[in-house]
Amino acid sequence: MIVLFSDFGADDIYVAQVKAVLAQHTAPGTPVHDLLHSAPNFDATAGAHLLAALQGWFPDGSVFFAVVDPGVGGARDPVVLEADGKAFVGPDNGLLSVVAARAAKARTWRIVWRPPTQSVSFHGRDLFAPVSAWIANGNLPQDTVQEIPALSVQLGAGDLPQAIYVDHYGNVLTGLRAANVSPGAKIEVDGHQLAFARVFADVPAGAAFWYENSVGLVEIAVSGGNAAQITGLRAGDPIRLV
Amino acid sequence: MIVLFSDFGADDIYVAQVKAVLAQHTAPGTPVHDLLHSAPNFDATAGAHLLAALQGWFPDGSVFFAVVDPGVGGARDPVVLEADGKAFVGPDNGLLSVVAARAAKARTWRIVWRPPTQSVSFHGRDLFAPVSAWIANGNLPQDTVQEIPALSVQLGAGDLPQAIYVDHYGNVLTGLRAANVSPGAKIEVDGHQLAFARVFADVPAGAAFWYENSVGLVEIAVSGGNAAQITGLRAGDPIRLV
Amino acid sequence: MIVLFSDFGADDIYVAQVKAVLAQHTAPGTPVHDLLHSAPNFDATAGAHLLAALQGWFPDGSVFFAVVDPGVGGARDPVVLEADGKAFVGPDNGLLSVVAARAAKARTWRIVWRPPTQSVSFHGRDLFAPVSAWIANGNLPQDTVQEIPALSVQLGAGDLPQAIYVDHYGNVLTGLRAANVSPGAKIEVDGHQLAFARVFADVPAGAAFWYENSVGLVEIAVSGGNAAQITGLRAGDPIRLV
Repeated sequence: MIVLFSDFGADDIYVAQVKAVLAQHTAPGTPVHDLLHSAPNFDATAGAHLLAALQGWFPDGSVFFAVVDPGVGGARDPVVLEADGKAFVGPDNGLLSVVAARAAKARTWRIVWRPPTQSVSFHGRDLFAPVSAWIANGNLPQDTVQEIPALSVQLGAGDLPQAIYVDHYGNVLTGLRAANVSPGAKIEVDGHQLAFARVFADVPAGAAFWYENSVGLVEIAVSGGNAAQITGLRAGDPIRLV
Repeated sequence: MIVLFSDFGADDIYVAQVKAVLAQHTAPGTPVHDLLHSAPNFDATAGAHLLAALQGWFPDGSVFFAVVDPGVGGARDPVVLEADGKAFVGPDNGLLSVVAARAAKARTWRIVWRPPTQSVSFHGRDLFAPVSAWIANGNLPQDTVQEIPALSVQLGAGDLPQAIYVDHYGNVLTGLRAANVSPGAKIEVDGHQLAFARVFADVPAGAAFWYENSVGLVEIAVSGGNAAQITGLRAGDPIRLV
Repeated sequence: MIVLFSDFGADDIYVAQVKAVLAQHTAPGTPVHDLLHSAPNFDATAGAHLLAALQGWFPDGSVFFAVVDPGVGGARDPVVLEADGKAFVGPDNGLLSVVAARAAKARTWRIVWRPPTQSVSFHGRDLFAPVSAWIANGNLPQDTVQEIPALSVQLGAGDLPQAIYVDHYGNVLTGLRAANVSPGAKIEVDGHQLAFARVFADVPAGAAFWYENSVGLVEIAVSGGNAAQITGLRAGDPIRLV
């Protein structure tokens, strides 16, 4: 199974080109799943924490094509990460580093193969897609990668006290794992203190609160309302626990 | 064939998690179709009429995963509906009830199975997805459901004189079936009376009208324009025939 | 492989209905790719140049379902184009004509088959989808089409000095192929002259420039910013080279 994670936009012209390349290089019937194409644009840090939270729902052996790559065409290396039985293919700009740091076992390779023709702006299609396909086939040619001791850009295993994603309901996901936060903690937003609730149904309509969302993150929500509009929070904004 | 209908947002983080669970529980190659993930948020009534109109385009034997579930984590039951050769899996909050009421033959079951670990906010992934997969496999374990006489929340078989969906062109779909409305009828919006037209090409550019859309509903449109912007209509607004 | 190109909206109610029809008419496992469903609404000219640029990334034998069809229900003919080993199915309103004019070898047929029941507004589902499926099966019944000498509406092989698409980053794609434009040329927007750059990483943050994008078109971008917001350019606006 190949799993796609990017800021390419699900409705845009990019994902289909990636899938056309994957189809050309994989065995017929290889499943390709769109995990997310609306990771915050150009934001490898938010993407790293989002990817770390979401990847847990996919089975061992999954190959993640993970590309949020504002430095495409610049100096960052393309890399492959193997972490606890899953593979991750993407740029060495921090995006894969939270998964790497939290893994019990991890190995890292620099991709040294270059496609015969490579656009300057779309390595997702030209470089990361064929490499992802070869790994999914169990057939990555040895001379395409060189093992390296670790990723160059490392964000570490810790939580991120920031908003990392706003969903289409307006719920605000943070980079804090709920397991690391006391239910007694409050989140201060704009002078208001938001308390914990177990579930939407426990909160009066229109009230803002935080809860442990379905992938284990602290999430700010408004029962029957749009938390991002009400709080003004956007991806990248700091989150303050009190 | 599994058909997905929800308010999860096609571009958001939820659909992929549902599909990962479906992939884990279905036979390889089981087709999964995204029917709609932009059903009006939290609105089981609009969703019920939309689902009833759209499901007709899918073949007998289709299994619909249908989840618009503002009460998740609360008291509503998870249910399975069998209606005229198709199965529907979702919450008992009205969403499946228009399909049920319009069916020639219908049976209903309460889902009594609970997943070993279930999030409080994402029963779509944790409960409805495995049950949908088992039904698609033709292999639902007997003790997972209990037959019940009928759904608890019933919206009935009748039409709904409301806007139920605004498409990306700005066309406004209503819960009225065109077969039940005379072509001589007009729709009053904001003091203007909109007349019937057979097709966009019959109407001058910029003019608002109503027509029978491709799934049999009364739809308000503007030739070459955005009817929702021009009329101000939104999902949930009443529609007045005169 | 069937490739879908339309202005139906990826998140809307239309694509699933097309896919349900395709599934009914194709051999199991026939791959269906969403190339783009956010082609500019109703704009066959922009769509024609976008399709011509994007289709090159798909393999020989691909069947393109290409529908941007503001005249649906009116007089335009449904047609099939065979161009350099690929098939294109859609309305004869210019949409397929740039591909046709740039092809080394092209043949054209009018579709004379009509479905037993055809909606007035959704020929994509009722007519173009079954025909696309039969072609993908290698099994188009002879009496469904009649060869014609050429398309009725022809936009020609030349470039289009207009904005044809705004992507979700805000980058503005034009109908100019970069191979036909000197790197010394500048684009005048609102009194400012935008110069060429090879890649985003070569440009200071916030600066507007043009570059050859990953499908060979001249594209206006802002490093780390949203070019469409900054320049005010929208699909359909003229582009002036100086």
